[in-house]
Amino acid sequence: MNIKAIGFYIGHILRIEGILLVPALLIAAYRQEVASFHGFGITILAVLAVGMLLLFLCSNRGNLREGKWSSHFGGEIRAKEGFVITSLGWIVLSLFGALPFYISGAIPKYIDCWFETVSGFTTTGATILSEIETLPMSILYWRSFTHWIGGMGVLVFLLAIVPMSKGTGETFHLLRAESPGPSVGKLTPRLRHTARILYLIYVALTVIMVVFLLVGGMPLFDSITTAFGTAGTGGFAIKNASIAAYDSAYLQIVIGVFMLIFGINFNVFYLVLVGRAAQAFKSEELRLYLGIIGVSTLAISLNVLPMFSNFWDALHHSFFQVSSIITTTGFATVDFNLWPEFSRMLLVLLTVIGACAGSTGGGIKVARVVILWKALKSDMQKMLRPRTVKAVCVDGKILDDHVIKGVFSYMTAFVFVVLVSILLVSFENFDMETTVTAVITCISNVGPGLGMVGPTGNFSAFSVLSKLVLTADMLIGRLEIFPMLLLFSASTWKSRT
Amino acid sequence: MNIKAIGFYIGHILRIEGILLVPALLIAAYRQEVASFHGFGITILAVLAVGMLLLFLCSNRGNLREGKWSSHFGGEIRAKEGFVITSLGWIVLSLFGALPFYISGAIPKYIDCWFETVSGFTTTGATILSEIETLPMSILYWRSFTHWIGGMGVLVFLLAIVPMSKGTGETFHLLRAESPGPSVGKLTPRLRHTARILYLIYVALTVIMVVFLLVGGMPLFDSITTAFGTAGTGGFAIKNASIAAYDSAYLQIVIGVFMLIFGINFNVFYLVLVGRAAQAFKSEELRLYLGIIGVSTLAISLNVLPMFSNFWDALHHSFFQVSSIITTTGFATVDFNLWPEFSRMLLVLLTVIGACAGSTGGGIKVARVVILWKALKSDMQKMLRPRTVKAVCVDGKILDDHVIKGVFSYMTAFVFVVLVSILLVSFENFDMETTVTAVITCISNVGPGLGMVGPTGNFSAFSVLSKLVLTADMLIGRLEIFPMLLLFSASTWKSRT
Repeated sequence: MNIKAIGFYIGHILRIEGILLVPALLIAAYRQEVASFHGFGITILAVLAVGMLLLFLCSNRGNLREGKWSSHFGGEIRAKEGFVITSLGWIVLSLFGALPFYISGAIPKYIDCWFETVSGFTTTGATILSEIETLPMSILYWRSFTHWIGGMGVLVFLLAIVPMSKGTGETFHLLRAESPGPSVGKLTPRLRHTARILYLIYVALTVIMVVFLLVGGMPLFDSITTAFGTAGTGGFAIKNASIAAYDSAYLQIVIGVFMLIFGINFNVFYLVLVGRAAQAFKSEELRLYLGIIGVSTLAISLNVLPMFSNFWDALHHSFFQVSSIITTTGFATVDFNLWPEFSRMLLVLLTVIGACAGSTGGGIKVARVVILWKALKSDMQKMLRPRTVKAVCVDGKILDDHVIKGVFSYMTAFVFVVLVSILLVSFENFDMETTVTAVITCISNVGPGLGMVGPTGNFSAFSVLSKLVLTADMLIGRLEIFPMLLLFSASTWKSRT
Repeated sequence: MNIKAIGFYIGHILRIEGILLVPALLIAAYRQEVASFHGFGITILAVLAVGMLLLFLCSNRGNLREGKWSSHFGGEIRAKEGFVITSLGWIVLSLFGALPFYISGAIPKYIDCWFETVSGFTTTGATILSEIETLPMSILYWRSFTHWIGGMGVLVFLLAIVPMSKGTGETFHLLRAESPGPSVGKLTPRLRHTARILYLIYVALTVIMVVFLLVGGMPLFDSITTAFGTAGTGGFAIKNASIAAYDSAYLQIVIGVFMLIFGINFNVFYLVLVGRAAQAFKSEELRLYLGIIGVSTLAISLNVLPMFSNFWDALHHSFFQVSSIITTTGFATVDFNLWPEFSRMLLVLLTVIGACAGSTGGGIKVARVVILWKALKSDMQKMLRPRTVKAVCVDGKILDDHVIKGVFSYMTAFVFVVLVSILLVSFENFDMETTVTAVITCISNVGPGLGMVGPTGNFSAFSVLSKLVLTADMLIGRLEIFPMLLLFSASTWKSRT
C-alpha cells in the first residue's frame, strides 16, 4: 500500500474543503451569526492545517525541492490506492465537514453532526433534525451546499481544478471509484478535460435552475439552496415542510423536472452539447428511466386519485414524488407515507432502482437494471437452446462479460450489506417498515423512507449504533459499495504487492 | 415444441396421482366420510380417465402396435420440453389434486382449494383455513400427503418407478427441472437408479421419524401426517395450534431435529450410506447450513430470553423456529410474530436463504449463498489486483463459470419475481410486513410470514388476484423459477427448433 499517495490526496481533499467552507463563513459574517462564524472559522483553520501538513509530509521530496510540492504526486496509484483514497477521503471530508454544526452548537451531539454531514455529502438528505427553519442561515447554506459538492464528487472536482498528473492512468482509478455506474464513460481522452466538462454542465444546469426558481417568485436564498439540493439529488430543504412549503404548482413542477434532469447520465448532456442529440436519445438507459417515471407516475396517480380533488392534482404530486424518489433526491410535496400500500411499495422499489449511471443520483442505477434484465433474458434463451450463443447488447454494443459479472457482484454485495444493516438496525425494535426502509433509503441515498422515517419523520430516534450503521450505508451507497468494503478488507492492507 | 411428449408425460403424472389418491379414499371409506369418499372417488376416476386418454393420444403408434403403449415414449425430449413438462405437470397435478377439497365441500371456493393444494405439493404449508381440526380425517390425510409427494418431486417418483427410457439423456432434463439446487448431482450414472436411491432414503427417514414420534406418545395418525409435513418440509399440521398442540419437549425436539435432517442435501445421506461419511461432512454447504442454524438459534435465544422463564425454554423454542424456517417447513411452537424485531427479521432472512440444495426444502438454498459469497470474494480480490486470476472453488473443486452465472441469473429472476409479486399483492392495501413476507414465504415455500400471515394467521383474507399471484409464487419457488417463467415465455413456444 502506498501510504504517501493516500496522505497526499487526502491532504488535497482537505485543502479544497477549506476553500469550499469560505462562502458559509462569509454568510455567517454578513448575517452576524457569531456561533456559526466561530464554527466555520475554526473548521477552516483545522482542515487547512491538517491538509497542508499531509501535503507536506506526503509529497515527493524531489518535487518539494523544485518548489512544486503541492501540485503533483510522482508515485504510482494502483486500483487499491484508488479505492482507499476515495473511501478514506470521503470519511475524512465528512468528519471535518461536521465540525461547523458541532462547534456552532446547531446540532448538540457529534454523531448527529456526522450523520447529517454524511447525509449531505452523499446526497442522501436523511436528517436527524425535526426543526430546520430556526437554524442560522450560514448553517443552512453549508447543509445544502454539501449536497452540491457531493453530487458530482469531490475527487472529480479535484481532478477538474488541480493539474494533478501528466498521464491518465494514475487518476483514472479515482474517477472510477467515485463515479456512479457499471462503467465509466470517458467523454474525452483526457480525464481532466472530462472532469471539467462534467462540472461545467453541473454549474450551468444549477444556474439555470436558480433562474427558473427566481422567476417563480422564490426568494434568492431559497432558490440557491433548493437548487443545491436538487442538483446533487440530495433533498435537504430549508423548510420543515420540505417543498410543500412552496405552495406553487409552477415551483413544484420546476423542481420536479430539474430533479428528473439531474437524474440523467451527464454523458447525454455532453452528447447534446456537441450536437449528437440523436445518439443521446437512443440510450436504452435513458429510455427505460423515462419509461419507469412515466408508468410509475400514471400508476400512482390512479392509485391516489381518491385522495385528491382532481386528476391533475394527483398527477402533479405523483410526478413530483416519483421524480424525487427515483432520482434519489428525497424532496416531498405531500406525506406519501399516508398513500395506499401499492404507491408506497412502488416508491420503495424506485428507491432501490435509483437514477441513471453517471448522474448525481444514487440507487443501483437504471443502467444496471438494463444489464441485469438483458443478461437474464439471454440466459433464459440459452436454457431453451443450449447450443446457441447470444451476446448481451446495450445501445447496440456487445457488453463485455466482465461488465456483466461486475453488475452481478455489485448486486450481491448490495444485498449482503442491506441484509446485515437491517439485522443491526432491527435491534431498535422498531416496526419492519421503518427498519427496512431506513436502511434502503440510506444506502440508495434517497432520504425519506416509510413509517417513522417517512417524509414528515426523521432519524433522531435511532441509537448511536444504528446511526453508525446508516451513516456507513450512506457512504457505501454513494461510493458504489466496493471502495468502502475494500477499505475494511484485510487483503487491501496486506503486503506490498 | 414436441407436444406429444408433453401430453405423454402429463398423462403419466395423472395416472400416478390417481394411485396416490387411493389411500385417502380408503381412509374415507373406513371412516365412513361420505362426502370425502365421493370427492376422492370422482377425482380418481377423473385423473385416470384424463391420464389414460393423454397416454393413448400421445404414445408412439409403433409402440402402441407392440402393446407397450404406456411404457415408453420414443420421441426426443430437449431442454425446452423438460421445462414445459415439469411446469405444466405441476399445474395440472395441483388442479386435479384440489378436486377432493372442492367436491367434498371441505373448502367451499375452488381458488382456495387450488391455493391449498399448491401450498401442499410445493411444500409451502401456507393455508387459507382458520379451522383445521374439524376437517374429515381423509381430507387431513390428503392435505399432509401432498407435502410428502411434493417434497421429493413427482417426476423423480415417475423416473423411479416407471421404466421410461433406455438412455439417460432424455429424462435428465426432467430431473434437472424438478430437483432443487444450482447443479444436479447424479449419484449414479443411471438416472433411474439415482431417483430410486433418493426415494428409498426419503421413505426410510420418514418411517424412522414416525417411530420416534410414536415412542413419544403421539397418536399414529398424528405421527404419520406430521412426518409427511416434516419430510416434505411442508408445514401443514392437523392441529390449529400447529406443533404447539403437542406440549412435549421430546416431541418438539424430535420434530425440530428431523426438520433439520430433511433440509440436508440427500447426497450427504447417500455418501454416508456408501461409507464415505468423511467426504459428506466436508461439504461446505452442510457446514454453513449447520453454522447458520447454530448462530441463529443462539442469537434468537438471547434476544427472546426475557419472554421465557429460563434459557433452556428460550433455546428450545428458538431452535425449533430456526429449524422450521430455514428448512422452509413452517411448523411453529410459539407465535414468533410477537418476538422482538431482530428475531423476526432474522427469521425472514432465513426464509429467503432456505435449506440445502438437493433436500426437500425451498428458498434460494445454502449452496447458492456459498457460491455468491465466494464469487463476490474472488471478484473483490480481482478489484485489488486486476492482474491475478483466481478461480472460485467449492468443496475443493473449481466451479465452472456457467454455474456461477446460473446462480446470478437465478438470483436476478428471483428478485424480479418477488418485486412484481409485492407490487401486485400491495393492491390489497395491507401493511408492508404482511405484503412483503406473504410473497417471500410463498416463493420460498415456507408458509408462515409476519403480520397477518404470521404463525397464527392465514391467507384467507387475500383477494383472488393475490391468491393467484401467491399460488404462482409457490410454484415458481418450488420449481426454481425458470421452468415456470419459461412456460409463459413466447420463445418457448415459437418455432420448432
